[in-house]
Amino acid sequence: MNKNHKFKKAIVLLSGGLDSTTVLAIARSEKYDIYCLSFNYGQRHIAELTASKKVVKAFDVENHLIIDIDLSVFGNSALTQNIKVPKNRTKSEINNKIPVTYVPARNTIFLSYAIAWAEVLDASDIFIGVNAIDYSGYPDCRPEFINAFEHMASLATKKGVEEKHKIKIQTPLINLSKAEIIKKGIELKVDYSLTHSCYDPLYDGKACGSCDSCILRKNGFTKAGTKDPVLYAT
Amino acid sequence: MNKNHKFKKAIVLLSGGLDSTTVLAIARSEKYDIYCLSFNYGQRHIAELTASKKVVKAFDVENHLIIDIDLSVFGNSALTQNIKVPKNRTKSEINNKIPVTYVPARNTIFLSYAIAWAEVLDASDIFIGVNAIDYSGYPDCRPEFINAFEHMASLATKKGVEEKHKIKIQTPLINLSKAEIIKKGIELKVDYSLTHSCYDPLYDGKACGSCDSCILRKNGFTKAGTKDPVLYAT
Repeated sequence: MNKNHKFKKAIVLLSGGLDSTTVLAIARSEKYDIYCLSFNYGQRHIAELTASKKVVKAFDVENHLIIDIDLSVFGNSALTQNIKVPKNRTKSEINNKIPVTYVPARNTIFLSYAIAWAEVLDASDIFIGVNAIDYSGYPDCRPEFINAFEHMASLATKKGVEEKHKIKIQTPLINLSKAEIIKKGIELKVDYSLTHSCYDPLYDGKACGSCDSCILRKNGFTKAGTKDPVLYAT
Repeated sequence: MNKNHKFKKAIVLLSGGLDSTTVLAIARSEKYDIYCLSFNYGQRHIAELTASKKVVKAFDVENHLIIDIDLSVFGNSALTQNIKVPKNRTKSEINNKIPVTYVPARNTIFLSYAIAWAEVLDASDIFIGVNAIDYSGYPDCRPEFINAFEHMASLATKKGVEEKHKIKIQTPLINLSKAEIIKKGIELKVDYSLTHSCYDPLYDGKACGSCDSCILRKNGFTKAGTKDPVLYAT
């Protein structure tokens, strides 16, 4: 029995949010050996990272690395600077324009670290929870970006050059609605009470309920016909 | 007079080595406003960063950011781990195979940070000193990698999506021999005594003279018919 075919290694980019946790459950169900990668990137709060640690505990993963990267040195995002997070926007407003919560080149940087680790681990796949349906209009969540990144990665790595082995960027959520993602996760017995999605949580840990991320999440649970176990302020 | 056309902003990836310093001189000669980006990436020595600071002082640059990134968490390179740097290899040995000094996905990570900064600064160009002639066989120094990265970057950024503005990755050295690079730099009055290229410098700061990087540099100066102002142990 060839272990390489039975238990391939996958890196899962894990923020501790609803999407990336569902992706972890999907990768796990596909029998990969899982290596989780999270980033401390100067977010305004560390609720996400706390959630990622809880999620990792709930799954059987090989390793979890949290990398410190300081994107706030570049400025210009509500997620890393003191800019007001937009609240109570409608879904069409959310989908319409790239918002101030966009962190420049964030997924590019995250995926670049992931290919470095993939090369060292000899991992075949990188899982990322990007979504082009119920998303916040970030350019680096679209399929054309992912395809271009995968192509670039095949040329960037020793493995790609010497062995013609292409690292696959897996995006199992890319064409799912938020409700479909939640249904998929519940099928895989994800405990969504461990996850954190809010861009602007309260001091008591409650989600604000009115930022883009909370709105998309709440709508998703409503449409999925399931109660969101997370506590909201509004 | 349109300032944007007269003084475009460029990011220069600066290691403090011969190549990136020449690239900085080229960007400067092309009248860009220069923003230098260096990385403290768990190199085994900081001679490179010290050199980058000296180089920045010698040029008229707008800003110089040094970003801490710890690639040694991933292991697997002689430049970040305690693996022996190969010595006294011939030029065909150097060009033949990707060596242990290769840092996985290093240029991908560096360029990803550069596009993040470019987006915040509204910079039009990123300069990188990659070279596909007298180089160490790293996959992420080849033109096909650079082209794929540039394409990916155009899809990754807000600017690329909303304004169809493509960030250009400039590689002025890519088709030059080391001797041609040195001649170009001397033309532009680069003081190469400020630069550092050695993978394995001695405690007194002298270059080892026998690692791949020293060998390529020494051959380059010989062919350019100029004396290398750097001190070598051998």
